[in-house]
Amino acid sequence: MKAYVFHGPGQSAWEDVPDPGVREPTDAIVRVDDVTLCGTDLHILKGDVPEVRPGTVLGHEAVGEIVDVGGDVRTVRPGDRVLVSCITACGRCRYCREGTYGQCRGGGGWILGHLIDGTQAEYVRVPYADLSVHPLPSALDGKDAVLLADIFPTSYEVGVLNGHVRPGDTVAVVGAGPVGLAAVATAQLFAPERIIAVDLAAARLEAAKHLGADAVADAREAPEQLIADLTGGLGADVVVEAVGVPEAFELCTRIVRPGGHVANVGVHGRPVTLHLEDLWIKNVTITTGLVDTYSTPTLLRMAAAGRLPTGQLVTHTFPLNHMEEAYDVFARAADTGALKVVLGEEPHEEVVPYRAA
Amino acid sequence: MKAYVFHGPGQSAWEDVPDPGVREPTDAIVRVDDVTLCGTDLHILKGDVPEVRPGTVLGHEAVGEIVDVGGDVRTVRPGDRVLVSCITACGRCRYCREGTYGQCRGGGGWILGHLIDGTQAEYVRVPYADLSVHPLPSALDGKDAVLLADIFPTSYEVGVLNGHVRPGDTVAVVGAGPVGLAAVATAQLFAPERIIAVDLAAARLEAAKHLGADAVADAREAPEQLIADLTGGLGADVVVEAVGVPEAFELCTRIVRPGGHVANVGVHGRPVTLHLEDLWIKNVTITTGLVDTYSTPTLLRMAAAGRLPTGQLVTHTFPLNHMEEAYDVFARAADTGALKVVLGEEPHEEVVPYRAA
Repeated sequence: MKAYVFHGPGQSAWEDVPDPGVREPTDAIVRVDDVTLCGTDLHILKGDVPEVRPGTVLGHEAVGEIVDVGGDVRTVRPGDRVLVSCITACGRCRYCREGTYGQCRGGGGWILGHLIDGTQAEYVRVPYADLSVHPLPSALDGKDAVLLADIFPTSYEVGVLNGHVRPGDTVAVVGAGPVGLAAVATAQLFAPERIIAVDLAAARLEAAKHLGADAVADAREAPEQLIADLTGGLGADVVVEAVGVPEAFELCTRIVRPGGHVANVGVHGRPVTLHLEDLWIKNVTITTGLVDTYSTPTLLRMAAAGRLPTGQLVTHTFPLNHMEEAYDVFARAADTGALKVVLGEEPHEEVVPYRAA
Repeated sequence: MKAYVFHGPGQSAWEDVPDPGVREPTDAIVRVDDVTLCGTDLHILKGDVPEVRPGTVLGHEAVGEIVDVGGDVRTVRPGDRVLVSCITACGRCRYCREGTYGQCRGGGGWILGHLIDGTQAEYVRVPYADLSVHPLPSALDGKDAVLLADIFPTSYEVGVLNGHVRPGDTVAVVGAGPVGLAAVATAQLFAPERIIAVDLAAARLEAAKHLGADAVADAREAPEQLIADLTGGLGADVVVEAVGVPEAFELCTRIVRPGGHVANVGVHGRPVTLHLEDLWIKNVTITTGLVDTYSTPTLLRMAAAGRLPTGQLVTHTFPLNHMEEAYDVFARAADTGALKVVLGEEPHEEVVPYRAA
């Protein structure tokens, strides 16, 4: 089959690799129908994630059809259309028993396209299939569904739920890339008073408005002041960090109100400065997290009911074998305006993203 | 009357000042019977808390008797024996309505010995008396009770409750001064599997053992390894920072398990480095906080029932007019072994602290 293989920093290709097969009785083999690219994949390509070995097939998000299962798999069978979750879960370890599948100690966690071959391929082997793929509601298009493999549960669990968004809250989302936009979308499920999106890119702030942000702020133009003005000087109840750089995190800790939450979603590569000399007295809560995907079944139902605008984040689609072109468009997002890029075996219908509206 | 007055960094004295009187109908005047010194007072004397104006009477913890009240005070009357809480609460603002009295926006919060004259005096004016003093159970000695004005609710709320200690947890307490020791004592209310105290001073680690720590570790001797060994390599479920320096906070973030909590109680004067490049994926929760004292009535009942070893933290007692000597003993804790120092109008019975046992 063909797959997108990482060969070390700066080296990767869409190339022939052996077909995957069932190795463990808990495995499933999935034919990949839709797959998307993640900012984390770009980090891997830059060499920022050193545990990814050369020779690994990238990708941790897909929609596809089960083509084979091991003898212990009970919840899916060949022919089923499924979502392949970015998190694989053994279901038996302490962390899985508490629903924190992302921290699985039984061989799962984030392993696809990281520690084992991933989804940017024609077929993928998914370990622990019973807890690691989700049967798809027939109402849900693959392009809409594939965004539920990672960014929607990530934004919802690590941003909105960890941040404890409540009715009437002021929610600030710092970073209006795909993950931040998904936080803008899912924060609305808790009826906040207002959502304020902060970014450097005007196009992304427009996207945030389209997805429901009530106000937007250029990160270079004192967003602290806007948020203070909107909140009687207090600051935001919940701040979601969806960038992953020190400046963004530090902004979050300046715009949170006393007693508020900073929910870090961004993937960080460097330490940040935490101003405890100001924050020790402010009763703030700071959370970090890899997604657990415990919310994925709920989000799938919501999406099937038309309650989540997942597909609106898809700006570009390609056939699966245009992987290298897709990576190029995604990596040059500042020029191309790319948010989420989806690839599939069959050409998708023309995407009319919100940006054209 | 006599009071201990701050005259700017390095300058303070026990001297004559005017008697306080009722100014607002919600005020009470309390005759101070027992008062204690706090590490925060030492910070003020060093000039670390610049909002304290010269001329301010220090102190935010006391036990005493009501001698006068304003016309709107309903819950106490002259002759009542009360605990003066470190937190004053208007009861009407958004924060008070949510029980977060420490963040009171109506003129309360931590004001005694900070923004207005405090308790290290023969008499003290307490604003918003209805919510800022607590009638004392008769079973409770003043020396035992005065530790419930600040350090016990601080350790319990900001450490144990914010850290969500649960049965079976491994709890690490970094810093075994009075606040850390109170965290060791109150964490036991939630039946953790074990409590590990970390400090630089052997005497304080002994005190921690006496108060119920199951294991102790010298901060210079790789406490990370001890905690890893005790937890199957995972780390502590809850880590309480009770020091207030960057090294201590950073140790806390190294010894917390994935999915665990770091509850910062320490008063910090400098920024810390937060290693988000390691922590972003670990599902950690970090909390900060000034005490709210919502737990003080509960802790008073527990102490009256003999369930809290508050008085065991008192190593030295003095008559009230020995304030300067008491400060000297408290400030030189490394030499004197002082934990909490209590002063009272009448000489206390001889204190036999746990360290003599």
